[in-house]
Amino acid sequence: MRVNTERLWDDLEQLGTIGHDPRDGGITRIAFSPQDMEAREFIKGLITSTGMQVSVDAVGNVIGSLKGELDSPAIAVGSHLDTVIGGGRFDGTVGVLAGVECARVIRESCYPLKHPIEVIAFSDEEGTRFGRGTLGSRALAGFLDPADFHALKDRDGATLWQVLSAQGFAPERAELSRRAVNSYLSYLELHIEQGPVLAASGISIGIVESIAGILRHQLKIEGESNHAGTTPMSCRRDALVVAARGVGMVPEILQTYGEGMVGTVGRFEISPGVPNVIPGLALMTIELRGRSQSKLDQCSQEILREVRALADRSGLSLEVRETVRTEPMEMNSRVIQTIEKECHDLGVSYRRMNSGAGHDAIWMAKNWPTGMLFVPSADGISHGPREFTDPLHVTLGAQVLLNTILSIDQWEG
Amino acid sequence: MRVNTERLWDDLEQLGTIGHDPRDGGITRIAFSPQDMEAREFIKGLITSTGMQVSVDAVGNVIGSLKGELDSPAIAVGSHLDTVIGGGRFDGTVGVLAGVECARVIRESCYPLKHPIEVIAFSDEEGTRFGRGTLGSRALAGFLDPADFHALKDRDGATLWQVLSAQGFAPERAELSRRAVNSYLSYLELHIEQGPVLAASGISIGIVESIAGILRHQLKIEGESNHAGTTPMSCRRDALVVAARGVGMVPEILQTYGEGMVGTVGRFEISPGVPNVIPGLALMTIELRGRSQSKLDQCSQEILREVRALADRSGLSLEVRETVRTEPMEMNSRVIQTIEKECHDLGVSYRRMNSGAGHDAIWMAKNWPTGMLFVPSADGISHGPREFTDPLHVTLGAQVLLNTILSIDQWEG
Repeated sequence: MRVNTERLWDDLEQLGTIGHDPRDGGITRIAFSPQDMEAREFIKGLITSTGMQVSVDAVGNVIGSLKGELDSPAIAVGSHLDTVIGGGRFDGTVGVLAGVECARVIRESCYPLKHPIEVIAFSDEEGTRFGRGTLGSRALAGFLDPADFHALKDRDGATLWQVLSAQGFAPERAELSRRAVNSYLSYLELHIEQGPVLAASGISIGIVESIAGILRHQLKIEGESNHAGTTPMSCRRDALVVAARGVGMVPEILQTYGEGMVGTVGRFEISPGVPNVIPGLALMTIELRGRSQSKLDQCSQEILREVRALADRSGLSLEVRETVRTEPMEMNSRVIQTIEKECHDLGVSYRRMNSGAGHDAIWMAKNWPTGMLFVPSADGISHGPREFTDPLHVTLGAQVLLNTILSIDQWEG
Repeated sequence: MRVNTERLWDDLEQLGTIGHDPRDGGITRIAFSPQDMEAREFIKGLITSTGMQVSVDAVGNVIGSLKGELDSPAIAVGSHLDTVIGGGRFDGTVGVLAGVECARVIRESCYPLKHPIEVIAFSDEEGTRFGRGTLGSRALAGFLDPADFHALKDRDGATLWQVLSAQGFAPERAELSRRAVNSYLSYLELHIEQGPVLAASGISIGIVESIAGILRHQLKIEGESNHAGTTPMSCRRDALVVAARGVGMVPEILQTYGEGMVGTVGRFEISPGVPNVIPGLALMTIELRGRSQSKLDQCSQEILREVRALADRSGLSLEVRETVRTEPMEMNSRVIQTIEKECHDLGVSYRRMNSGAGHDAIWMAKNWPTGMLFVPSADGISHGPREFTDPLHVTLGAQVLLNTILSIDQWEG
């Protein structure tokens, strides 16, 4: 059985017209926006056209089902359709459309599946609108905190509950989205790497061993705003100077932790922010990602201790708040070995690697044997108009996915 | 002759109600705003009530004139009435109101002045609205670039020309604001220090020797935005890390230049500025102030060389643009000595010092023997609601100003 390169690429191109900005080529399908709703309609039509059953759950997950000889457990494959602001055509969509293509090929070939297949387009993975992603997979795996429905608000002040209701979903029945632990034999997600590793090394498939944990702190450094001309250097309590020295230390400290960890200051704001006033306030985030929770904690403590020492020395106050703690998640070793074997048998180059980005697979892996496949991102770029994956790599990814599905279908329950 | 403490303080308090925000006590009289126009009406009324002639020139300078035995040259005293956003009650206003009080006392005592006195409330000193200050003094001293009328725009896109015209001033006759070089015998400006030096040392009067020059550069550091989780530390071109290390070096390099110079990064912005994206762009200003132009140039070259080396080492691009170059301005030594003598004779504590802030006196000093007096700013604070100068210090400043006027009045033409 072979996936159809042109059909899959056509689907990607069609989906890529929804939310497309002709000025810069960026794609914007914020969760539950008109563009996101249009993408859901597109995928529902596509699923139906393949002869699968389609359903939409209480939080908006779109699920296509292909029957097997057994009623359950199913093999789930999926990813997401929503994007960041000005994102690309491949992030998420590759996994959903490859899942549809796999089911389509299996159905066309009248292959006698033992297990049902579910192709899932998860709701609100990116978290762009409400600041917290992977809504659909958390709900489906049973890790959604119901308090989030009212606590999370978008830019316009609308709660997640209000936005879901307005789009015809049913947050009051969110519990029904939760699937029983015996629902799935396995979950598989094909995704673009979103980093430079595969593209730089010329390898076609990345097999994810672990999805990095995320530890994020928000820091508020407070000194004193003052006149930039009349305040002697020795009398200053400059929040920017302290914050900037803290930023400079992050890569230095990370160097001592080796390759498995990255650290980023992504948000950095000062006040008042005018050329002739000494900044009295600095706000910044420090985000660490890595495979080992204990190393994440150790590294973060080390960085925060240094920043505190800098602040103390200059008489500034420092407030620290932990805002994100997502534990690292290991993928299932049997699934990893299965993907590896299929790559090998197909003669496709592959390597094991870690995922620095978060994915729906994190939540699925808590309940079900889960595996992830990466395909190369040209120049390592994602979340932007220049995001690109070669049609060849999309095809190879989908083919390995198909072969892995068929192999898992043979697992003893 | 003695200035009247209560009357002067009453005037300050009355003027301080215009543009006053009762929520935080801040004062906002942006140039040519309704609040600024109201302040002009107040000062015109006050000048008239003292028996002086009042006139308003083409760019909005309000000038009160008291006749002397001679027609000219006049002794000019003044400062400004406009404020920054959320500023204080003393910055600028002390100099204008003390000037009015001096003229009022002289007139009340029927003192036979040889020279006329002009009390000037200069237009748009702060530059908050158009990004360039000391409009009125530049126009009066003949240093206004007529291109500014159309080049400078406020936040709403209105040009300086349009705003002046709308308020009934006459930018098309701006040349008439320019005063002949033989118009003034001297210019005197009393101002709050806006820094901590006098308050910290318990000295009542600062006699300005030099107003610091300002050298400001705008830096644009460009790297590459990328995913904070998937981009290995070794592949990053993080604009924030380079910019932050640049910020950290500014105070270090300044230390080697001693007390006469200060340096500030006041504006600092990154893009895209979200926690999970490596910043690809950083914009910052570096502003140096000091008494020696050659040292300013040398220090700024040293800092920029270091930032360029940092950017080069990380493969980032750096664009540098000089945006402000105001040469240091020495005050007139004869005026300095006169103020010093009057402080001494009154038994008021004083010291010579430099002004780190810019003032209208810069432009006046280019044409006329100019001197500045500082009174203490409590805690060194200015440009905010907590700006405060003790009534005693306001009175002492006004009294030294009065005695200096009377002393200069005796100069041989």
